[in-house]
Amino acid sequence: MNLPSYNDILSAHSRIRPFIHYTPVFTSAQLNKIFSSDLYFKCENFQRVGAFKFRGATNAILLLNEEEKQRGVVTHSSGNHAAALALAASMNGIKARIVMPKTAPVVKINAVASYGAEITFCEPTLQAREATAKKIIDDTGATLIHPFDNFNVVCGQGTAALELVSDNPCLDFVIAPVGGGGLLSGTSTCVKAMNNSIKVIGAEPLNANDAYQSFTTGNLVPSVNPSTIADGLLTSLSELTFAIIRKNVDQILTATEESIIECMYLVWERMKIIIEPSSATVLAVIKENPDIFRNKKVGLIISGGNVDFKKLNLRR
Amino acid sequence: MNLPSYNDILSAHSRIRPFIHYTPVFTSAQLNKIFSSDLYFKCENFQRVGAFKFRGATNAILLLNEEEKQRGVVTHSSGNHAAALALAASMNGIKARIVMPKTAPVVKINAVASYGAEITFCEPTLQAREATAKKIIDDTGATLIHPFDNFNVVCGQGTAALELVSDNPCLDFVIAPVGGGGLLSGTSTCVKAMNNSIKVIGAEPLNANDAYQSFTTGNLVPSVNPSTIADGLLTSLSELTFAIIRKNVDQILTATEESIIECMYLVWERMKIIIEPSSATVLAVIKENPDIFRNKKVGLIISGGNVDFKKLNLRR
Repeated sequence: MNLPSYNDILSAHSRIRPFIHYTPVFTSAQLNKIFSSDLYFKCENFQRVGAFKFRGATNAILLLNEEEKQRGVVTHSSGNHAAALALAASMNGIKARIVMPKTAPVVKINAVASYGAEITFCEPTLQAREATAKKIIDDTGATLIHPFDNFNVVCGQGTAALELVSDNPCLDFVIAPVGGGGLLSGTSTCVKAMNNSIKVIGAEPLNANDAYQSFTTGNLVPSVNPSTIADGLLTSLSELTFAIIRKNVDQILTATEESIIECMYLVWERMKIIIEPSSATVLAVIKENPDIFRNKKVGLIISGGNVDFKKLNLRR
Repeated sequence: MNLPSYNDILSAHSRIRPFIHYTPVFTSAQLNKIFSSDLYFKCENFQRVGAFKFRGATNAILLLNEEEKQRGVVTHSSGNHAAALALAASMNGIKARIVMPKTAPVVKINAVASYGAEITFCEPTLQAREATAKKIIDDTGATLIHPFDNFNVVCGQGTAALELVSDNPCLDFVIAPVGGGGLLSGTSTCVKAMNNSIKVIGAEPLNANDAYQSFTTGNLVPSVNPSTIADGLLTSLSELTFAIIRKNVDQILTATEESIIECMYLVWERMKIIIEPSSATVLAVIKENPDIFRNKKVGLIISGGNVDFKKLNLRR
C-alpha cells in the first residue's frame, strides 16, 4: 500500500496555502494550571468552514486533472467534510455534488447549499449513501472524494500538525482525535518525520472505541452502533488510515462522555473559544490520564468548532 | 471636573502593559458579508479574567501610593470588575475586599475567591452594597475602586481602543457598549484624540436605555429596574462618565433583546469565539442600523466573554 510521506505533506501545504487559514496556536495559563501540563491548542476551529477538513478537501480538489475538474466531485457526508468539499470546489470553479441523509440538520444542509454545492438527499443509511453516490458517479463521471480513505485528503489533513510543530518544535506529545483516521494519519506521518521523539496519541470516545480496539488487537475492528456526543468520530478506520496509524501512532487513549462534555465547556468558559465535542475528546484524554502528561508540552489538534446552538437552550 | 486626557490613557497603557494581554483583533469574511461592513472585533473576551475590566482595575491598583497599597482596596460588584480587581490586586501583592450580594452566582463567587480576595456578602440591594463597603472602608482604611466612576479606571479602559486604532488606523467607526460608561468614556476620549474623524458610538440595550435618554436629553437619567440579558449594562452613568460621553461620543444606539441574543449566537457560530451578551449589543446596533454602517470600516469593542454555561442546557 502506498502511504503518504512527509514530502507529500510538505507539497500539500505549499499547494493549499493560498486557500487555507494558517490557524493560530492558543495557550491558556488557567488550563495549564488545571492539567499541570503546557498545552498548545492548534485552532482548526478557526479554519475555513470551521474545521481541519478544509485542508484535505482542498488538497484533493487541487490535484484533480483537467478532465476530472470538468466532471466535478462527489461525496457522501452530513458533516464537516461535506461543507469543506463544497467550499474547496466552489473556490476552484468545480462542481460539487453532496449526498446527504434526508435527516441531516437544516443548519448543515444550509451550509453546504450556501457554498453552491448540489445536494442529493437519501435514506439515512450507509448503504443508501454509497448507492446514491455510486449512481451519481455512473451518471456524471464525478470523482469521489472520500472523507478520509483518500491519499490526498490524508496529506492535506497532515498540514495542521506541520504548522503546529513548525511553530512549537519542543513538544513532547501531539494528540489528535480519531474517527475515520484521516487527521490522525496525516498528523502522525508529519510529526514522526519532523521529530521522532514526539509521541503521537489518538484520542477517541470510549463509546466509539473501534480505533483503540483495532490498534490494540492489530485487526481492523469496525465501529458498530457507536453512541457519542462526538459526532465527528463515529466512523471506522479504513485499510489506508489503519496502516498509517499502526506505523506511526504511539498510543490511542479513550475518554468518557462525561469527560468530553466537561472539557468542552471548560474550553468554552476559560479560553472563550468554541470547540466541538470531537475536539474536546483530545483534552478529555489528558484529564483521564494525568500521569502521562504531567509537566509535559502537549500539542492538541482542535479539529473544529461547529456546534449546533439551536440544540442549546438559554435558560433565563 | 477633571476629565482624562489622551496622555493619561497613553500613560495608563505603558503602566499596565506588563500585566495585561495585548488582545488580538479578529475579522470574519462571513460576518462582513452578512452586515455589508468591514468589522474589526477587538477581542477583550481574551483579556485576563475574560473582560476589559482588568485594564482599568490594574491601572487603578498601580496608581495607589505606598500607604494605600498597605491598606488594600475594596469594591462592591458581582460582575467582571470584582474578578478584575481581585486579580489585579493579587498580582501586585495588595489585599482586595469584595462586597458581593449573597445571591451572586457561585461561579462568580468562586472566580473572585480563586484570586485570593476576601469576600463579604450582603443583601442584594445597592444600598446594602454601598453600606457594607463603607463599613469596610471605615474599619480598614481600604481604598474604594469604583467600577467606572473613577478617573484611573476610565483611563485604563481606554487602552483597548488605543490598541484597536493603533493596529487599524483607517476605521470609520468605533462602537463600545455602555452601562456605567467607563469603557465608552475611555474609548471615546482615546479615539477622538487619535483621529477626530472616527465616529464613536455607544451601544445599549433598549431595555436599559438610560444612557441613550441621558445623552439625548442632556440630563443624567438613572437606570430604573432595567431588564436585559446584557447583565454588564444594567448600571447608570455617573457624573464623570456622563460628562466625558457628552463631550466625545457622536451617538448612542439601542438594540432589542432579540437582536442581542441573535448576534451573540451568530458570533459564537461563525467566529467560534465566546462573547457575552453585553458584547453582542455592539453588533446588534449594526444589525438594527444597516444604513449607517454599510460599506464602512467598523471597530467593535468586544467587552468580555464571561457566560455562565451552567445556565445553558445541552439538549441531545
